[in-house]
Amino acid sequence: MIDFKIDNLSYQLGSLKISYNSLSKKFPSWDLKKVQQKTGIKFIYQSSENEDVLILALKSAKKTLKNFNKKNIDCIVVVTQTAKNKLPSTACLVQDKLGLNKNIISFDINLGCSGFVYALGIINSLLKNNLCTNTLLICSDTYTKFIHKNNRTCKSVFSDGASSCIISKNNKSNFTPNFNFYSDGSGGKDLIEKNGFIEMNGPEVYFFTTNTVPKLFNNILKKSKVKKENIDHFIFHQASKLVLDKLANILKIPENKMHTNYDQIGNTTSSSIPILLCELEKMNKIKKNQIIILSGFGVGLSAATCLIKWN
Amino acid sequence: MIDFKIDNLSYQLGSLKISYNSLSKKFPSWDLKKVQQKTGIKFIYQSSENEDVLILALKSAKKTLKNFNKKNIDCIVVVTQTAKNKLPSTACLVQDKLGLNKNIISFDINLGCSGFVYALGIINSLLKNNLCTNTLLICSDTYTKFIHKNNRTCKSVFSDGASSCIISKNNKSNFTPNFNFYSDGSGGKDLIEKNGFIEMNGPEVYFFTTNTVPKLFNNILKKSKVKKENIDHFIFHQASKLVLDKLANILKIPENKMHTNYDQIGNTTSSSIPILLCELEKMNKIKKNQIIILSGFGVGLSAATCLIKWN
Repeated sequence: MIDFKIDNLSYQLGSLKISYNSLSKKFPSWDLKKVQQKTGIKFIYQSSENEDVLILALKSAKKTLKNFNKKNIDCIVVVTQTAKNKLPSTACLVQDKLGLNKNIISFDINLGCSGFVYALGIINSLLKNNLCTNTLLICSDTYTKFIHKNNRTCKSVFSDGASSCIISKNNKSNFTPNFNFYSDGSGGKDLIEKNGFIEMNGPEVYFFTTNTVPKLFNNILKKSKVKKENIDHFIFHQASKLVLDKLANILKIPENKMHTNYDQIGNTTSSSIPILLCELEKMNKIKKNQIIILSGFGVGLSAATCLIKWN
Repeated sequence: MIDFKIDNLSYQLGSLKISYNSLSKKFPSWDLKKVQQKTGIKFIYQSSENEDVLILALKSAKKTLKNFNKKNIDCIVVVTQTAKNKLPSTACLVQDKLGLNKNIISFDINLGCSGFVYALGIINSLLKNNLCTNTLLICSDTYTKFIHKNNRTCKSVFSDGASSCIISKNNKSNFTPNFNFYSDGSGGKDLIEKNGFIEMNGPEVYFFTTNTVPKLFNNILKKSKVKKENIDHFIFHQASKLVLDKLANILKIPENKMHTNYDQIGNTTSSSIPILLCELEKMNKIKKNQIIILSGFGVGLSAATCLIKWN
């Protein structure tokens, strides 16, 4: 394992901002006040009809490339589960639309809320193996295009969006990042797309998350020999208030170290961790050499945790 | 880059075997004799209605696991573009259905005919980075479920099937495998799924392949310092007779080193290379310590070449 840098974080939300208040008016039979107490969400972002996974990915990636020479990119990884076409992969289309090198590795990873952390582990390995030096990592999903209009559980939680960054070797560092992965396909049915619609069994995903994430967290502490009190920031997938409050409670995370933004943008699946990182960096809340734990969990069911040092 | 082993190769074709003769009878207006002169294909395998990507994957993987202790698997990679559901990933479902470990890495890669070689490069990197030790690699696709009944170009070429193997470190070897990747999304439109149907612009894919594969081949020779005459076997994606004859001609590959099986099973996309490897191994045609070049190319458009030593 080598150390790596996460640079030029950017994101692009779906262009339709929808408040819980407006949802209340549209679905008067839904008790959205009670729902909001659980989710903690005030706004949801939906993609418009002509915004798909590729378009959101390109909008975000263009921001990432504003301050990075695109000629130096030799790998594109796109995490997505909701691309418009089954084939070709979105990563190949990104190569063309952004005018990137053709002597380039490009592939899509099919994962959801654990996808960003998974991608970091995979890209770290490609860097370590000298197969690439600068990877454009994009997460992009449009779950709301696959939510039935009467599915309250999904409609009140998921937002559309893309995020992007550059992952490269951090040659100056002697820190060793650490990863831990978990997969339980027996819960595959609990967050699934079937016949064009996404369905979620909220209580089962909650049960999986609150059981699995603490285990992975403790494994990472053991493996990395880092003490809990030395972790500066806890950046978890922004599932909902219910899930994050419970995790904070189980893991006894100090309030000032547990970061959230679900209230403002909802659950953006694979992009939720990088969007939160991007916001915290903008606000100067995360600083060089701080220790950060990232944890993604959800569809699969799948979970991944990693411990990194901010570059 | 470390050396790796490809063990326990197995495969499972779709259960409906269809001869070109029977296609001729079904589509009397198609000049299938002329088509066959180009494709060289005698039989196509289609999945039945209840055979999907997961079911074919499981059938193949069960054969691979007959002689391998499943408790030792700590990574599952599935290459597919035609899974039944957008989410969850097929790899997570494989974890559950085969009763594999839950402390496991599992993800799907969205790539087609270049996918097996890509997956070898990615898994090699995970092995090198000590993120896993034994990976169950599965390729599974059911393109024929997405081919319009009047699409002669696709119907006369693509077969459904899955393949599987175990990829692990080869600690006893001092050989260094070598990889070369290429992506050109400007040809994404030339092999695409749109509104449920796959469409292929044969001449454009042919042009890409016959231009790109020789370049990657020469790059690999240069990088690896292996001489062409020292390569024992050329295992290319089984696109069609037209493509493979042309590549053999450009690269001046001796007939006894250029292997094909497209005539018997058609183009099984991501599985075509592992199925051919499996068959050659069964027939004792590839032997320990022989040098083999693998090359996958197609949808993306995407290509990947690697030079390996057989374990």
